[in-house]
Amino acid sequence: MMELTILGCHSATPREHKHTTSQLLEVQGNLFLIDCGEGTQIQLRKSKAKFSRIQHIFISHLHGDHFYGLIGLISSFRLLGRTAPLNVYGPKGIKEVITLQLKLAKSWTDYPLHFHELSSSKSQILFEDDRVSVVTLPLIHRVYTNGFLFTSKTLKRKINTAAVKDLNLADYQYRQLQQGQSITLADGRSFENKALTLTPELPKKYAYCSDTAYHESLIPHIEKVDLLYHESTFLEKHADLAEKTMHSTALQAAKIAKAAGVKRLLLGHYSNRYTDKVEFINEAKTIFDAVYLSEDLKTFSV
Amino acid sequence: MMELTILGCHSATPREHKHTTSQLLEVQGNLFLIDCGEGTQIQLRKSKAKFSRIQHIFISHLHGDHFYGLIGLISSFRLLGRTAPLNVYGPKGIKEVITLQLKLAKSWTDYPLHFHELSSSKSQILFEDDRVSVVTLPLIHRVYTNGFLFTSKTLKRKINTAAVKDLNLADYQYRQLQQGQSITLADGRSFENKALTLTPELPKKYAYCSDTAYHESLIPHIEKVDLLYHESTFLEKHADLAEKTMHSTALQAAKIAKAAGVKRLLLGHYSNRYTDKVEFINEAKTIFDAVYLSEDLKTFSV
Repeated sequence: MMELTILGCHSATPREHKHTTSQLLEVQGNLFLIDCGEGTQIQLRKSKAKFSRIQHIFISHLHGDHFYGLIGLISSFRLLGRTAPLNVYGPKGIKEVITLQLKLAKSWTDYPLHFHELSSSKSQILFEDDRVSVVTLPLIHRVYTNGFLFTSKTLKRKINTAAVKDLNLADYQYRQLQQGQSITLADGRSFENKALTLTPELPKKYAYCSDTAYHESLIPHIEKVDLLYHESTFLEKHADLAEKTMHSTALQAAKIAKAAGVKRLLLGHYSNRYTDKVEFINEAKTIFDAVYLSEDLKTFSV
Repeated sequence: MMELTILGCHSATPREHKHTTSQLLEVQGNLFLIDCGEGTQIQLRKSKAKFSRIQHIFISHLHGDHFYGLIGLISSFRLLGRTAPLNVYGPKGIKEVITLQLKLAKSWTDYPLHFHELSSSKSQILFEDDRVSVVTLPLIHRVYTNGFLFTSKTLKRKINTAAVKDLNLADYQYRQLQQGQSITLADGRSFENKALTLTPELPKKYAYCSDTAYHESLIPHIEKVDLLYHESTFLEKHADLAEKTMHSTALQAAKIAKAAGVKRLLLGHYSNRYTDKVEFINEAKTIFDAVYLSEDLKTFSV
């Protein structure tokens, strides 16, 4: 199961009902936070997510609309009595700016706070367990920036609890079933694996690409992902502004999605100059059909 | 004219409809911001204030619920094309933490940004013009903290435009009237000053005291002010917590207000543990009658 909740999808300055970038991604029970604009902790509360379960926060770059909410979230975790470790992945400098603020407030966290500072311009693995891996996607922007690719793993087969309930299986037999084996009971009865288990969900891939200029070197890294979030700060009529500020247009996002053969494209990071978001979807749909609009607090199944 | 708008009045962690500390004070046309918790810029937009007019921001101390919104506001001023200078008054360290974040984002402000760092434990004057003065009120908290006393000045007498409209006065005669003089026209007619002018508002005093432990040495600094904002994080049933965390109870705030002979007391900086704010007012009213509750986005005439 991979599920994405948009906490904020607007660029530059936060406004009422227009929150800056943050996303919550749940992958097989892991809860990841991606970017953390000002006010993210309030959006997390509104989303009703159990946000104390977040153990890994990925920050793409150090522009304010992507990380000014981080220090507040870290502080609130402390005030709420957190004890679980928290891992923060982000550009070099992020540790200094957070620890300086904790020092000035004389408010060191009571929980372990680990910083993983990034400076490589090549894709690198940040986190992996038996359910998911996370790697960076080098992006091109005015400051050092990474996107992130989340890939869930094939899980063990699921026990069909209704089918096994009268068989009185031993623990090792459950493990055999989860690993795909068929089993034979002490009384001689044999069961095909498929008779007692359910097929788990196939692996899923989610690619987060914000902020970034249009650049085709990204394409091989995100081929055939199930869902691509690609920033679309501007429309084509402002392509000059997109180039100058190293952002993308909705059409450029669609070009990347099409070239990479992704299943679905999610647009976002809208400039405040546009009032009607339908223009973004119309522009992208001229070359790529499966396109969706981010909205604050909307959830997408990957 | 002195008018106070509460932007946020809750302590510790921001929640939906519970914003951390920030206040907007308008004094004779000057717009001052006092403290700047996370999300203050959105509260400023909701208040409908012309917040680009703010030229002076006073930060009491470097706990997050009083200043984590400052970097976002400074950044937004830049994105909104500000050119007017901005002055920030706050504890030593505030310049380093703000400039570090601007450096990491490669986003220096295009407008002049002046920091006035404070470290004195004695009251000092921070700003003065012909309409208002601002001095610090040393407070006692877990980190270095100042309150602020705003005192408006007696303005010139106001011209009664209806009374003078057929007199065809010269510029110097307007100035004479504003200074309280009576005048004689070229045709020999004499006018008492009061016949042609209106009495300006009397000077007003507003004292902001948050965060602070109960301490009586504050009293002489705030005697007879028109409005005292004194934090009341706790109720008396949690007086032990108030003492431990160097905050005040509603009763303690009322004691200070009564001893200082202030006209009105405004409570705020409520702990999230209380659901019914009426308890704060009931507790304070046992010893001081003119007590009011802060509410986010509520405006008080000083």
